[in-house]
Amino acid sequence: MATFADDHRYAMPAHFGGEPGGMYPLHYRDTVSATVWYETDGEQLAQLLPPGFTLDAPQIMVSAVMNRGVEWMAGEAYNILSVNVPATYRGAQDTLSGWYCLVVWENNAIPILPGREGTGIPKIYGEIEDFRFDADTMRTWAHLSGHTFCQLHLTGIVDAEERRRAEIDDAFSTMQWMAWRYIPRTGPTGGAELSQATVFPQEFVSTRVRFAHNTIEWSVPPLWQNPTQHHIISALATLPVGKPSGPAVIMDAENILRGDLARVLR
Amino acid sequence: MATFADDHRYAMPAHFGGEPGGMYPLHYRDTVSATVWYETDGEQLAQLLPPGFTLDAPQIMVSAVMNRGVEWMAGEAYNILSVNVPATYRGAQDTLSGWYCLVVWENNAIPILPGREGTGIPKIYGEIEDFRFDADTMRTWAHLSGHTFCQLHLTGIVDAEERRRAEIDDAFSTMQWMAWRYIPRTGPTGGAELSQATVFPQEFVSTRVRFAHNTIEWSVPPLWQNPTQHHIISALATLPVGKPSGPAVIMDAENILRGDLARVLR
Amino acid sequence: MATFADDHRYAMPAHFGGEPGGMYPLHYRDTVSATVWYETDGEQLAQLLPPGFTLDAPQIMVSAVMNRGVEWMAGEAYNILSVNVPATYRGAQDTLSGWYCLVVWENNAIPILPGREGTGIPKIYGEIEDFRFDADTMRTWAHLSGHTFCQLHLTGIVDAEERRRAEIDDAFSTMQWMAWRYIPRTGPTGGAELSQATVFPQEFVSTRVRFAHNTIEWSVPPLWQNPTQHHIISALATLPVGKPSGPAVIMDAENILRGDLARVLR
Amino acid sequence: MATFADDHRYAMPAHFGGEPGGMYPLHYRDTVSATVWYETDGEQLAQLLPPGFTLDAPQIMVSAVMNRGVEWMAGEAYNILSVNVPATYRGAQDTLSGWYCLVVWENNAIPILPGREGTGIPKIYGEIEDFRFDADTMRTWAHLSGHTFCQLHLTGIVDAEERRRAEIDDAFSTMQWMAWRYIPRTGPTGGAELSQATVFPQEFVSTRVRFAHNTIEWSVPPLWQNPTQHHIISALATLPVGKPSGPAVIMDAENILRGDLARVLR
Repeated sequence: MATFADDHRYAMPAHFGGEPGGMYPLHYRDTVSATVWYETDGEQLAQLLPPGFTLDAPQIMVSAVMNRGVEWMAGEAYNILSVNVPATYRGAQDTLSGWYCLVVWENNAIPILPGREGTGIPKIYGEIEDFRFDADTMRTWAHLSGHTFCQLHLTGIVDAEERRRAEIDDAFSTMQWMAWRYIPRTGPTGGAELSQATVFPQEFVSTRVRFAHNTIEWSVPPLWQNPTQHHIISALATLPVGKPSGPAVIMDAENILRGDLARVLR
Repeated sequence: MATFADDHRYAMPAHFGGEPGGMYPLHYRDTVSATVWYETDGEQLAQLLPPGFTLDAPQIMVSAVMNRGVEWMAGEAYNILSVNVPATYRGAQDTLSGWYCLVVWENNAIPILPGREGTGIPKIYGEIEDFRFDADTMRTWAHLSGHTFCQLHLTGIVDAEERRRAEIDDAFSTMQWMAWRYIPRTGPTGGAELSQATVFPQEFVSTRVRFAHNTIEWSVPPLWQNPTQHHIISALATLPVGKPSGPAVIMDAENILRGDLARVLR
Repeated sequence: MATFADDHRYAMPAHFGGEPGGMYPLHYRDTVSATVWYETDGEQLAQLLPPGFTLDAPQIMVSAVMNRGVEWMAGEAYNILSVNVPATYRGAQDTLSGWYCLVVWENNAIPILPGREGTGIPKIYGEIEDFRFDADTMRTWAHLSGHTFCQLHLTGIVDAEERRRAEIDDAFSTMQWMAWRYIPRTGPTGGAELSQATVFPQEFVSTRVRFAHNTIEWSVPPLWQNPTQHHIISALATLPVGKPSGPAVIMDAENILRGDLARVLR
Repeated sequence: MATFADDHRYAMPAHFGGEPGGMYPLHYRDTVSATVWYETDGEQLAQLLPPGFTLDAPQIMVSAVMNRGVEWMAGEAYNILSVNVPATYRGAQDTLSGWYCLVVWENNAIPILPGREGTGIPKIYGEIEDFRFDADTMRTWAHLSGHTFCQLHLTGIVDAEERRRAEIDDAFSTMQWMAWRYIPRTGPTGGAELSQATVFPQEFVSTRVRFAHNTIEWSVPPLWQNPTQHHIISALATLPVGKPSGPAVIMDAENILRGDLARVLR
């Protein structure tokens, strides 16, 4: 008979056995990210935050990342596009400020599963294109079956001067990445089996920082083009894209995902 | 603020809103499946069943399916390879015989997520090739990044005579597909937040039934080739492939996934 | 030493050896095609025809095909989208009416190579989506890296009555598919090593014929999105999409590509 | 009417127009290659060389390359695996020593076409995996639809000391990449329309050079797994893999493909 030890970690299919211990730090040895920030309508944005969260600024951060040298995947690479907002969680026990994650598209199903089930990060599938560097520009975009819904255009890329690089390194040294884990009840009633705030801290150790001008474009595909994500893209595209809150940042870094520090917020 | 109604269904990211009601029947209008059964070592196989389940026969059923015309995905297609064993669940309230699902590989992340989170079906990602029909043979296989781990070879394909088709139709009219939903605790301790038996009934309405001889081959990739699924494939490949428990069945069918009848077994 | 026999067929890399004989009939056992016809500006369209060809009607035929059971590929499947015009070739020796092929997108490189090199069919790479059948509609579309450039929408699909099916079968029984083979000179001068008209006859034996209403949409991606095909899509999108020259046809068929009858037109 | 100017370059479909001039230098801004050399049976290897070529050493060079920042593809990336032998061409006019290309697999159809048609480089389609760097090892492999046929394992990766890096840089500064362009006659007779030796010079400007131990493994898939490339892989796998002719080289470089210097050898 398959049994499930209380001090081991398992993932479905759990009956094939687990490993001693729970979550642990994941090393992503060689990542390059392109991050942009823009202002939006705070009232509208606040509608998306679940109970316990309040908005710290009417701002959206979108980050595309090429993850390479992923240790737990034997060096495999995958790309993501995450959408986050500055927020504070205030619960019975915890008060924590950081970035609340609205959604993450990832182009590989394997890291999507533990991210969702273990830490509540709302990862869904999307094709995120490898960055196209061409002279001092870079472009990347996200699509599903050929229907592009988000494009990032970076122009005038330049290396960061020393002082500003230090500021960026400091800002990214620890990111409190917060989310909402929701596991539905099985069957026809609706409702939740689990519904709770979580945090999954991320650390970035940069080897290079560059700045760039940027444009971001959201496009809403008709329902038939993306029936399972249409409501998500619609909501994001409805949020006004205001002026950038500073230059885009291209960062080469090692990323450490602190599974050991992940927890449910109370 | 985003709120979560107790009579609506949501999936992460849940803060973008849900739909009234819970799970409902999903129509897969145009599927073709290739199913094989083989005998194996019952003692070894029983080690994989979680608490409450007992083995009904020392047998494994492997089914490859091309799902097309998937209604909730606007007609998109995807392929799966499922591995199941005949078993009975006996709980405090429920006694149910059917097929316990050891693992399902699917070549599309979108249906993987609700299957795991909502019903506990242990779906994981794999490339399942479109069926290669060539004269009276058919082949399909499953791989990850080029490393094939399961191959199905069907030969001597012939249409079923009327009487035997009726038997097959009857056997597939309702399949009690059982699984174990396991959601881990967040953080370094290990252990489960949810750990429970489930059932997700499936119905097949055939339009054509064919029989064939069959061979199945499991191959275990070295750890570096498939670090996240190695223990699963190893365990399956260790189970002896005994003689087929009858011919392979190729069935063209509409498949109805009875989300409305899915439930946690008690 | 590798040698090249004058009565064998080879493909690069040719030094690994060839097979006796030249081109031969290729059987595509199980295809489903969706074909639409529309009127356009004849003067503009005639600009695209090379020497020797004249336009028979100011009309464009676009055909999306799911090729399955492809014999020479051991049953593998691939999808194509072809754009053709009714034309007549008049050369020193040959006079032939049929369909001149403007371009074919295919989602698999393997059949692209012999099609181009051996018969001059101007195949290029594109993602052609598996048909999405949903109730009485069908959609398919073509893209490159997420940038869709052509969409086909079919609605009100109904089976053809007997008489009209016979007409369609007759029209498709033999299609004189003509093209222009162009192989460049190597190096900095420009110009051609080979530049000639060809024909590659196709035969369709239907098992089912359906009719539908249809819409076709061309979209021109910005140059950076599709630098190598931009001029092709631009030219096609510039041709007015006039009224359909009849209903769309969905045909299930065996397709025989008559390599044995392919030849250079003189 | 579409016309074809003798001082322009065109690619099929040529009727959509060409560009002034012929082939020109292509800049690949950011490539990383892993190259291994091994000894083999010279007599057997010589059987693969077409008329005019003689073997300079009983040696095979296999090179996997991740091409990124490809200028003519707007910065898109693609991967290749090439197999080459040291050879000299002696024709009526030309005598040239360099590397004769036996075959190149590429994971993108777009660069395959001009490489074959314009310069005779025998490119064919294959999935070449992004390099998996993990600590001081690197792996990559080539497959088709999940059937792996070549694997490269590099271990003990270390940066090259200055003197040896200079040697490598010198060896790669210009590579005379030779091939055989073969375009078949159309129709059932067999034989060639074009059959000729070519050269396509390549230049590498390195930014980093590393050395490693290496293993290479060829595996021959059964015919049904790879019907169009089986004879190629079989021939390569039959050539003994002798001892490495030195360490593997991992090179980060800009690669310039000298289309302007490509020519037919006479």
